Amino acid sequence: MARSGRRNRDRRDRSSGVNQRPWRQIKNPFPPLEILDEAGLSAIENAALTILEEIGMDFLHPRAHDILKAAGADHEAGTDRIRFDRALIQESVAKAPSRYKLYARNPAHNLEIGGSWLTFGAVSSPPNVSDASGGRRPGNKQDFDNLLRLGQTLNCIHLFGGYPVEPVDLEPSTRHLDCLASFVRLSDKLYHAYSLGRARILDGLEIARIARGISDEQFCREPSLTTVINTSSPLRLDGPMIEGMIEMATRNQCMIITPFTLSGAMAPATIAGALAQQHAEALAGITFAQIVKAGCPVMYGGFTSNVDMKSGAPAFGTPEYAKAVIAGGQLARRIGVPYRTSGVNAANGVDSQAAYEAMMSLWPAVMAHGNMIKHAAGWMEGGLTASFEKMVIDAELLQMMTDFLLPLEVNDDTLGLEAIREVGPGGHFFGSAHTLARFETAFYPPLLSDWRNFESWDEAGQPLTVDHASRLVSELLAGYQPPPLDPAISDELDAFIAKRREAGGVAA
Amino acid sequence: MARSGRRNRDRRDRSSGVNQRPWRQIKNPFPPLEILDEAGLSAIENAALTILEEIGMDFLHPRAHDILKAAGADHEAGTDRIRFDRALIQESVAKAPSRYKLYARNPAHNLEIGGSWLTFGAVSSPPNVSDASGGRRPGNKQDFDNLLRLGQTLNCIHLFGGYPVEPVDLEPSTRHLDCLASFVRLSDKLYHAYSLGRARILDGLEIARIARGISDEQFCREPSLTTVINTSSPLRLDGPMIEGMIEMATRNQCMIITPFTLSGAMAPATIAGALAQQHAEALAGITFAQIVKAGCPVMYGGFTSNVDMKSGAPAFGTPEYAKAVIAGGQLARRIGVPYRTSGVNAANGVDSQAAYEAMMSLWPAVMAHGNMIKHAAGWMEGGLTASFEKMVIDAELLQMMTDFLLPLEVNDDTLGLEAIREVGPGGHFFGSAHTLARFETAFYPPLLSDWRNFESWDEAGQPLTVDHASRLVSELLAGYQPPPLDPAISDELDAFIAKRREAGGVAA
Repeated sequence: MARSGRRNRDRRDRSSGVNQRPWRQIKNPFPPLEILDEAGLSAIENAALTILEEIGMDFLHPRAHDILKAAGADHEAGTDRIRFDRALIQESVAKAPSRYKLYARNPAHNLEIGGSWLTFGAVSSPPNVSDASGGRRPGNKQDFDNLLRLGQTLNCIHLFGGYPVEPVDLEPSTRHLDCLASFVRLSDKLYHAYSLGRARILDGLEIARIARGISDEQFCREPSLTTVINTSSPLRLDGPMIEGMIEMATRNQCMIITPFTLSGAMAPATIAGALAQQHAEALAGITFAQIVKAGCPVMYGGFTSNVDMKSGAPAFGTPEYAKAVIAGGQLARRIGVPYRTSGVNAANGVDSQAAYEAMMSLWPAVMAHGNMIKHAAGWMEGGLTASFEKMVIDAELLQMMTDFLLPLEVNDDTLGLEAIREVGPGGHFFGSAHTLARFETAFYPPLLSDWRNFESWDEAGQPLTVDHASRLVSELLAGYQPPPLDPAISDELDAFIAKRREAGGVAA
Repeated sequence: MARSGRRNRDRRDRSSGVNQRPWRQIKNPFPPLEILDEAGLSAIENAALTILEEIGMDFLHPRAHDILKAAGADHEAGTDRIRFDRALIQESVAKAPSRYKLYARNPAHNLEIGGSWLTFGAVSSPPNVSDASGGRRPGNKQDFDNLLRLGQTLNCIHLFGGYPVEPVDLEPSTRHLDCLASFVRLSDKLYHAYSLGRARILDGLEIARIARGISDEQFCREPSLTTVINTSSPLRLDGPMIEGMIEMATRNQCMIITPFTLSGAMAPATIAGALAQQHAEALAGITFAQIVKAGCPVMYGGFTSNVDMKSGAPAFGTPEYAKAVIAGGQLARRIGVPYRTSGVNAANGVDSQAAYEAMMSLWPAVMAHGNMIKHAAGWMEGGLTASFEKMVIDAELLQMMTDFLLPLEVNDDTLGLEAIREVGPGGHFFGSAHTLARFETAFYPPLLSDWRNFESWDEAGQPLTVDHASRLVSELLAGYQPPPLDPAISDELDAFIAKRREAGGVAA
């Protein structure tokens, strides 16, 4: 990309130009929004338990059959079908912790999960990437690294929920090694390893342990890696995911159990039905994890949206999505498990639609007490593209939302009665001592919003938000500094990667 | 404009092409969001009452001095300064109704005001107008009329809160006559007359009575006209506004008392201070209205935002704005008066910023239980420009928000257990009977959001939201039909306008 040259040239002098809010993790001060009453909530819960009892769910791995059968679930011989009675579900899910801490390799970036704590995750897993200068293209390692750098630099992004883009130019057998090494080297925030079979997740676990420079015993006490467990909706859990779960649970790492219940396609064409199925699949996944290792950290992932009935295309940031997000929070709290949701949109262009759909998901996600809001920066096209410009525009939204959630301070000083008295009717506050004392810090300073008057904006060539975003991407990448990494850890990481690479990585 | 020719040519065949949601007024199902605790709320209230007791407010009209003195307020002789003791404020404000109905000339467009009822108003009062084909230009009557037509056609817009743009090509002395006549002829929704002195508001009242074809006695029983009373913050109420209030209150019409407390300019550089001043000014205005006529319908208007400290430019859709909107709702409910707030932004372009700032005001406005959300469609540049494209993009947001507020239905039918059973693990719901039965109505159909996949979108030339909006504006204007108007009313309106025009209108 054009900007990587620029970045190397003027790394130092441009970094200070970007005025962003500090890293902070905050608690949501509002009570969670609720869209379902007790009758609705218990009807969905009951439907979910009935689905698991009567229809059951397919677990596509013999080890899961054995583990679940031993725990008392019903395995239909000769098939993958598992049926759970509700007591088993309820007693297993009750073992999941409602609050825990996740450990980044930089302790300043550790995250509190659960309760009213809020975290924002970067875009993950699109096959494509785009920026204003290079357009849309298949994912590659250079863009992967630059998206990591951008996410590391943006203080409002708390974690990476997966590869910010899939680098298809890398060999599948060793891709996970290269990508996980980049996570460790280019960022010191919490990250994610894909549960694509046993070998890959074992590599991910070992790299995460090395990155923190800790013993296996400490690693198993301090969850330092996340993975998303997607069910193959409807009602199926694939083999590679099951292998990942077994290893992640055994080592007490964090699993985000997320059914992809797209209403009208992989779930009924009603939000209530899709939620019932989402709840069933999430309960089954959480149950399996808790059976493998009681008390291991899990999240309840909600990802219910709807298809556009005309085209079959998934729609995101719709009224149905917003409702499902809020109901999902209620279902997660009902079982006492932290809630993962997402900031999403279905836009192709970095335009108004991309912004309003993002807001139509971010607001309900926050109001629903999402504990982890994934894909909150950079997601486009229903997850098919990671956009550099969208990532920094979304950062503006995340910063604004964070400031909004900070307290509105009311005290004698902020009430400013003396200033009002001094200025009096018909006066103005620009020059008052009360204003001057707050000149620098009174209000939210935007990352890229253009608040100039029309005349100045017109003179500047009428730049749109996407143009400001493009400039900001360059500035942030230019200002990027790799986070310090202990040389001993770096060496150990090198050695591990080299050893695994020599062994041929993982068979595709 | 280019489109008016097109409109006449193919009015009939294009009107049916736009798939919008039906007219409906809904109640907000959620409890109001609260950002202030009882201590904060009562501190702001106490500060406001202290301001009115000790500092006072300037009422720039001798009639106001007489009326307020007679009611027991303290008039500082030889000045415009009025001080109120808190008992007078509290007993006067208690007379304001918390719920009432507003009457449009089409009874289907009557509006419930107060409680959890929600209404959306179109952009009002910008000096400029813009659209994609003609760019930004000073307001004129042709654009005024087309914005009325667009607002009439869009079902999600409940009312006009003022002129959708100021038609500066019309003579100031008779402009109000032309504009009010257009409101009546081009729309049958509730509208607004400006309180710019006694003569203009008397014309507005008479035109509103004629439009409904009712007696003066019925008109005074059924509020059929709104006006916004802006204080000249800090702490001043101008003469023309006072004259408007006296006539509107006397005839029992609806006054929306709205201080413009821009934090850092016309109010302290703290949101708490700006809210204290907002509350003081609103209380003073509501008190004056209730002293003129006890029980007349008023609204509590909140419009607190902040300036950009660097430029002094007003900022909108900021975290501070969102907080002020939510606190404003609490203050309005505390005095039992319906709450008016606004959908706003400071963007120059119809771009991402315009959309995310709009959402950053719409969401808190709805969560705060705004009863009337003004400027909710078409507002740009902090109120300096009305945009045709922005109006239809905002209509998408208002439609989505409305659908979001409709119930999430949970029952045996929507839970769809039989469909889940029928489809089973690994199947799909596209062809299931449960899906097919809902094919047409299952999900929110977008007004202009583009949900095509990238390839189709690319093939279509990568249209942005603003391009879709431009097309939709043309289609909606092409489909516009003037609402029926009783010929007798039309004649009476003509006669009144002619008579007032002959008399020379109102001296500028």
